[in-house]
Amino acid sequence: MAKVYLTRVEKFNAAHRLWVDDWSDDRNFTFFGKCANKNWHGHNYTLEVTVAGNPDPVTGFLMDVRELSKIVIGDVIDHLDHKNLNLDVPFLKGIQPTTENMTIVIWNRLADKIKGCSLYKIRLQETDKIYAEYLGE
Amino acid sequence: MAKVYLTRVEKFNAAHRLWVDDWSDDRNFTFFGKCANKNWHGHNYTLEVTVAGNPDPVTGFLMDVRELSKIVIGDVIDHLDHKNLNLDVPFLKGIQPTTENMTIVIWNRLADKIKGCSLYKIRLQETDKIYAEYLGE
Amino acid sequence: MAKVYLTRVEKFNAAHRLWVDDWSDDRNFTFFGKCANKNWHGHNYTLEVTVAGNPDPVTGFLMDVRELSKIVIGDVIDHLDHKNLNLDVPFLKGIQPTTENMTIVIWNRLADKIKGCSLYKIRLQETDKIYAEYLGE
Amino acid sequence: MAKVYLTRVEKFNAAHRLWVDDWSDDRNFTFFGKCANKNWHGHNYTLEVTVAGNPDPVTGFLMDVRELSKIVIGDVIDHLDHKNLNLDVPFLKGIQPTTENMTIVIWNRLADKIKGCSLYKIRLQETDKIYAEYLGE
Amino acid sequence: MAKVYLTRVEKFNAAHRLWVDDWSDDRNFTFFGKCANKNWHGHNYTLEVTVAGNPDPVTGFLMDVRELSKIVIGDVIDHLDHKNLNLDVPFLKGIQPTTENMTIVIWNRLADKIKGCSLYKIRLQETDKIYAEYLGE
Amino acid sequence: MAKVYLTRVEKFNAAHRLWVDDWSDDRNFTFFGKCANKNWHGHNYTLEVTVAGNPDPVTGFLMDVRELSKIVIGDVIDHLDHKNLNLDVPFLKGIQPTTENMTIVIWNRLADKIKGCSLYKIRLQETDKIYAEYLGE
Repeated sequence: MAKVYLTRVEKFNAAHRLWVDDWSDDRNFTFFGKCANKNWHGHNYTLEVTVAGNPDPVTGFLMDVRELSKIVIGDVIDHLDHKNLNLDVPFLKGIQPTTENMTIVIWNRLADKIKGCSLYKIRLQETDKIYAEYLGE
Repeated sequence: MAKVYLTRVEKFNAAHRLWVDDWSDDRNFTFFGKCANKNWHGHNYTLEVTVAGNPDPVTGFLMDVRELSKIVIGDVIDHLDHKNLNLDVPFLKGIQPTTENMTIVIWNRLADKIKGCSLYKIRLQETDKIYAEYLGE
Repeated sequence: MAKVYLTRVEKFNAAHRLWVDDWSDDRNFTFFGKCANKNWHGHNYTLEVTVAGNPDPVTGFLMDVRELSKIVIGDVIDHLDHKNLNLDVPFLKGIQPTTENMTIVIWNRLADKIKGCSLYKIRLQETDKIYAEYLGE
Repeated sequence: MAKVYLTRVEKFNAAHRLWVDDWSDDRNFTFFGKCANKNWHGHNYTLEVTVAGNPDPVTGFLMDVRELSKIVIGDVIDHLDHKNLNLDVPFLKGIQPTTENMTIVIWNRLADKIKGCSLYKIRLQETDKIYAEYLGE
Repeated sequence: MAKVYLTRVEKFNAAHRLWVDDWSDDRNFTFFGKCANKNWHGHNYTLEVTVAGNPDPVTGFLMDVRELSKIVIGDVIDHLDHKNLNLDVPFLKGIQPTTENMTIVIWNRLADKIKGCSLYKIRLQETDKIYAEYLGE
Repeated sequence: MAKVYLTRVEKFNAAHRLWVDDWSDDRNFTFFGKCANKNWHGHNYTLEVTVAGNPDPVTGFLMDVRELSKIVIGDVIDHLDHKNLNLDVPFLKGIQPTTENMTIVIWNRLADKIKGCSLYKIRLQETDKIYAEYLGE
């Protein structure tokens, strides 16, 4: 039985800012720099969702990649695309929307939805120079 | 005398929304779709600034590309990066921040600043699937 | 009145081969090399459609890019994606499916469909190393 | 002794379709969607072959990357490039040419050919949105 | 008769520095900055060669792209790849190897070699942030 | 406690050659091919530095990515950018500047500088077709 990893790539565009409510403005601006801009800024995010398992001997599918795409879009992308990550997303309430935290939240949204194989990795790219990965542990 | 085109690429991340104040909410949402989200969304923008002219016979420079970069960053990027294009940018006041309009505004910011050669084109990429170009006429 | 160029990028995957029916097999294989493989080969094509015009003073839209996308998908992508360019596409009947010819055919499909501005350029990328462009003349 | 991973990237263009002979046409079209098109479709594939081992203390080479390239091209690319993956490739006979299955087949072609270090991973990208990986177990 | 533009992309890796022999070291370092490093630096260059003409009505070829590739490799790439642009290249003797100048030199190498259609543009990318173009006039 | 991986991407341009001083010219040219060119060649290198740890519950930061960038630039990029890897870099003295060896040297430069989380991986891309990775063991 060969274990193969299959990745689906999806994109979304969102606004956010980094800010700790308990801190003063000064402390926020010092700590987060221009990412703390009160009027928000935004990104084109690239999300990679990797599942792992054994390809079916007849169909050659680890998982139907269109089904994987439907889950990722329905459970994640539709909730984040063209949204404000601090204000518009119930499952991000109270969570600092850093790239790091987003990978954990997205993992938790998807882990139970993947049937017949298992979620292996979430990779989220925020800019050409920054990305984060989470493997569920 | 050979006319050469030299391009500098710079990036910025910003929030915006598309909205006409004189229109009802309904009309805005119908016309602009999810781009009208009241809490904003955002993008990683890629800006390409092309200048045209004759390379200097001794230095081989059409224009010092570090000088070009300094102008683009000082006059454009520093004003747009990690900003809200609808709220934070004086020279965008009253202008709908579509990719199309942004190329014209950026052209007008830069045209007089380029010395010894001439501004030829502004290209602004908003997502992997959309970009606009303006040649000043 | 500022003339701006707006580009929409769409992708499709297709099979094809290069072959002249009036030629012998030998002549075809000599001329077209491995592109003549009788059992076909295929590509991930990237199509760029550029329109030109004046952005609307109120909406900032040269053309609604979602409308442009709908036209490109409905009139081109849906007919080419996951198809055999030699066998499955009525509007390619009798036309050698080179990248060059494809840009002309796609131009002719789209030119009359663009309203309120004008089609400016078709760019079709066949591989990382080959692309063709057509401006309608 | 430091274990380093070295990756070589090569590309090929091929036609294929996804189809189970024992199934009716209807069941194939329902299951595989447009990937079942009888006249085939195709892709630009990007193959990454990663080997692992200790760099030679004198030459700094884990493995001569030109030698690695020669093996990958001779044993894999030359057999797949500009081919029909369902019809033209003896070592794919009877194997559904999904991205998942292809990574296993390519691993099996290469594992014994790598000398002085060991094959670590095969990564095959089918489109910008889909790739599979296999580590040999 | 439809005029189509066909582009071939090729790459090379080379060392160079920017330096004017008639200037003092100080003046060179002030003017060219770190690009004047006496022990050289280098780049992965991406060269795009665009030809223009009418596709043949039978073959659909503007020009055989393999023939175009052979000319670009034989007359340009083989002379520049893994070379020092200041020391190793006879046709660059006495020419400052800026991206701008290189496009002119490459144009002059290729213009007469293109048969049956005409050279339209040379585009040379030096880094992700800098490229130059030359159209022969 | 969730373990997340955060990656920062930085670039540099450098000259180098592959050469063993104890070998004859002939043996060097036979073994290293055009990479042994006595007058050097060069590359645009892309460096990816990955750190691993638990995001802070308040700030959502695994590590301040601007701080990570400052360390990577100060301890690595500033020493390699626009340099000759064989001649200009004290910490590369006596080390063959292959991509493989460079990942080990860069790891050793950075491992002790990362505070509050730990260095996980160094990835260095030399060309579009070659990259190496090192995980510190």
